[in-house]
Amino acid sequence: MAKEIKLLGTWASPFSHRIELALKLKGLQFHYLEEDLSNKSQLLLQSNPVHRKIPVLIHNGNPISESLVIMEYIDETWQHQNPLLPKDPYARAVARFWAKFIDEKVINDVLWTAFKAYNDKGKEQEDAIEEFSQQLKFLEGELKGKEYFGGERFGFVDIAAFFILQFLTVLQEVKEAELMTEEKYPVLFEWMEKLQGNEVVAGCLPPREKHVAYVRARRAAAEEAASKTKAA
Amino acid sequence: MAKEIKLLGTWASPFSHRIELALKLKGLQFHYLEEDLSNKSQLLLQSNPVHRKIPVLIHNGNPISESLVIMEYIDETWQHQNPLLPKDPYARAVARFWAKFIDEKVINDVLWTAFKAYNDKGKEQEDAIEEFSQQLKFLEGELKGKEYFGGERFGFVDIAAFFILQFLTVLQEVKEAELMTEEKYPVLFEWMEKLQGNEVVAGCLPPREKHVAYVRARRAAAEEAASKTKAA
Repeated sequence: MAKEIKLLGTWASPFSHRIELALKLKGLQFHYLEEDLSNKSQLLLQSNPVHRKIPVLIHNGNPISESLVIMEYIDETWQHQNPLLPKDPYARAVARFWAKFIDEKVINDVLWTAFKAYNDKGKEQEDAIEEFSQQLKFLEGELKGKEYFGGERFGFVDIAAFFILQFLTVLQEVKEAELMTEEKYPVLFEWMEKLQGNEVVAGCLPPREKHVAYVRARRAAAEEAASKTKAA
Repeated sequence: MAKEIKLLGTWASPFSHRIELALKLKGLQFHYLEEDLSNKSQLLLQSNPVHRKIPVLIHNGNPISESLVIMEYIDETWQHQNPLLPKDPYARAVARFWAKFIDEKVINDVLWTAFKAYNDKGKEQEDAIEEFSQQLKFLEGELKGKEYFGGERFGFVDIAAFFILQFLTVLQEVKEAELMTEEKYPVLFEWMEKLQGNEVVAGCLPPREKHVAYVRARRAAAEEAASKTKAA
């Protein structure tokens, strides 16, 4: 069965790494196929014709898109190996709520805004960073008093949140902005340290230097494009 | 157990009506509490401190927010009564994909944009309507050849999509815009007719005249606010 799992992803996408981590936590072998997003493969376009985005998991020829949907699929298909969601329906609902919150409020609404505004040292960036900090406080509160978001076990919400570990801190380094400090988020920082010490989790992250260089190059390209637009 | 289910909602919200419909399809009795969104109750603010939004389901004192998360909870808690999601993990993933697509691409990204642009007869509105029509085509394609989105049974995705039946057509009537025509979406129209003939589904919708008057009044208020902003 293991040979029938394919993951279409890109090395710098936190959404790909979620799926990689979920598969590894289940102890599954899979074929990883790196996508070039500037020249998407036919397999990607056929597998996700609606969004044309990674990650896509293909299991026994069946394609599944959207990282949280894929994570649910993996958990249901291999339910007896290291469960990601808790058993109790209410605890499951709480986990789904926070995973959705991370995608919609932390990443989509705020993080991209804070990042897009790289070229703007003014109010838009300040507002985005302030809003980001508010949303992160909710996560800090949810984690307080627990080992992991999943309680005593690393689980579904931890996978959704683990982009913080590197993707967020790389962004912070490249932007030279304080998106997140240990003083403000001691609980999240302790959790991050725990994750850094976890071989499976850390093994899903790309080399940090390569990642920083990549984000720096993208930022420079975006700045150049923005200054050309201004000049035109 | 039935007496321990509370639903906090508002009568004109398609997201409330999803939960009402899911509970009724499960044959459950519940207390419906109408919220005044201009003066939210303490119960709502305490139950959903993160988003402060309806719908909220409170079951045995445990609050759950986000309509799709609530629908999953209802399906898992009362799993033997009229299942909403299919059993097979892949079919479940496909249903979750489409429900998410409806929320993010059809409602959030496009429908609100098309609606917000009420005051703009120009390009922004045209683009939003064109984009909406593209997204609706994906739904038309998914439904083709099936009785319901759930196959032979009315299910999870049907509940997510049933806002089309009235909320969308009311919007269309008030805007005097063609968001959706039978010629372009014959499969969706046939499905809508089937739903109109279904007592449980139709019983969840507010009286159409009241709904039209409400949306018309909101639109007029928004237009007035916009013209004041322009004049200022």
